[in-house]
Amino acid sequence: MSNNAPIGMFDSGIGGLTIAKALMQRLPQESLCYLGDTAHMPYGDKSPERLKEYAVGITKRLMDLGCKAVVVACNSASSNALDEVRAVAGPEVPVIDVVSPVVDWAVSHNPCGEFALIGTRATVQSGLYDRLFSAKGGKVTSLATPLLASAIEEGFHNGTISKAVVEAYFADGWAAEKDAMLLACTHYPLVKDEICAQLPSQVVVVDTPAIVSERAAKVLSERGARASAKTQSDRFEVTDWTQAFADGAAHILGTSVDLFEVPWSEIQ
Amino acid sequence: MSNNAPIGMFDSGIGGLTIAKALMQRLPQESLCYLGDTAHMPYGDKSPERLKEYAVGITKRLMDLGCKAVVVACNSASSNALDEVRAVAGPEVPVIDVVSPVVDWAVSHNPCGEFALIGTRATVQSGLYDRLFSAKGGKVTSLATPLLASAIEEGFHNGTISKAVVEAYFADGWAAEKDAMLLACTHYPLVKDEICAQLPSQVVVVDTPAIVSERAAKVLSERGARASAKTQSDRFEVTDWTQAFADGAAHILGTSVDLFEVPWSEIQ
Repeated sequence: MSNNAPIGMFDSGIGGLTIAKALMQRLPQESLCYLGDTAHMPYGDKSPERLKEYAVGITKRLMDLGCKAVVVACNSASSNALDEVRAVAGPEVPVIDVVSPVVDWAVSHNPCGEFALIGTRATVQSGLYDRLFSAKGGKVTSLATPLLASAIEEGFHNGTISKAVVEAYFADGWAAEKDAMLLACTHYPLVKDEICAQLPSQVVVVDTPAIVSERAAKVLSERGARASAKTQSDRFEVTDWTQAFADGAAHILGTSVDLFEVPWSEIQ
Repeated sequence: MSNNAPIGMFDSGIGGLTIAKALMQRLPQESLCYLGDTAHMPYGDKSPERLKEYAVGITKRLMDLGCKAVVVACNSASSNALDEVRAVAGPEVPVIDVVSPVVDWAVSHNPCGEFALIGTRATVQSGLYDRLFSAKGGKVTSLATPLLASAIEEGFHNGTISKAVVEAYFADGWAAEKDAMLLACTHYPLVKDEICAQLPSQVVVVDTPAIVSERAAKVLSERGARASAKTQSDRFEVTDWTQAFADGAAHILGTSVDLFEVPWSEIQ
């Protein structure tokens, strides 16, 4: 496979674009194929079985598009469907998830730290973060904040709503004594300021997109698979075209994008 | 078709159960088949094309189950896919939507009234309420409150979140001068108290489930299709089984229900 082939990425909606933006900055010579599975958005409340089904279909699509790597830019999918993505991608195509790089980073930077984590119900219920932290001797306290991704998909242009939701989830001070907060959903960096405002200043909010893009760079370098130059435009696909996604993508990436609809019925 | 055949109903999630509950009270001798399309939940941000596709599949499923009528217990689907539901149901199977009964009721009870309406983006953008009110000489002001259905699906057991979302949507007092508020999403009756608390006491909050169940009773009676006795248990299906739906259904209906999963891949 050519080193100039694109990196495939997916999420249920716009959240994974926070990872895409970090990748564009860290690896400007790489081309991206981003798929937002908006027909099934949000992923955070879907069952593990559905998440596996969607991840398999999307990975096949990314393989059809000739991607040289897959970034699972969604914590719900990373926590529930990583084995399925790897099985479809095969041994030649590296798969980068958004969970293990962050756990590795957290434990290596603060081995005795007490970590707080917020994520979707699907992510928290999977128990993957707990298992990975536990295996490295780290401690994490998780809270499912199921409405936050929807609040961000809906209203991050209008801070009122997402601010109200963030405040409600942190109202009882459960995270105030921790050393660091992990944003275990790729949507959450979009309300990082609102989250920081609810936490004492000593609580470090971990920058997931930067950590994941660094891991992607490392994985590609180890395989000698880095692109030498950007040879094609980034491609953005959704399973349901909506103006809300187009507006959100333009807001996050700082530029409007051509957005192609590929209905789920063509992906299965 | 037998009068004792069930009434089919659908929504994306638990919201339509507010209609189901009203139907059970108004027509206790009828049996229900309820389908929650949780794999595609929420409907409020889906495109009209997807809503039509989902409504067609679900109506076929309800016809396969032998339903004698279809209640489209979702404003987003009623506003965007009613023709498609009627086409699948055919002339022998009456289709009851949740939009026209409420507009008829509102204009007949207060012909000079100024109405406020909150609904999903899909409902408000369809313009159906505007057209129906306009045709009857009524006036309505609509606001899309896209996060509210998700907030209710997620957190109506824990009022903090939905209360924060309701407060944020009404913060600027846009509805305070109206005569009545239409809850144009079948989820919203679940936070009726929180909505009432944000409105002056002279603003009547219209009881959609009661109006729709009355319309269903009228339509069945006109066709001589009322059941004489309840001969089968109500059936509840979802396209993605989750504990959250099971808990929500039990909370709304006041009793736990057997919940069957019928994946979308078997419905198409």
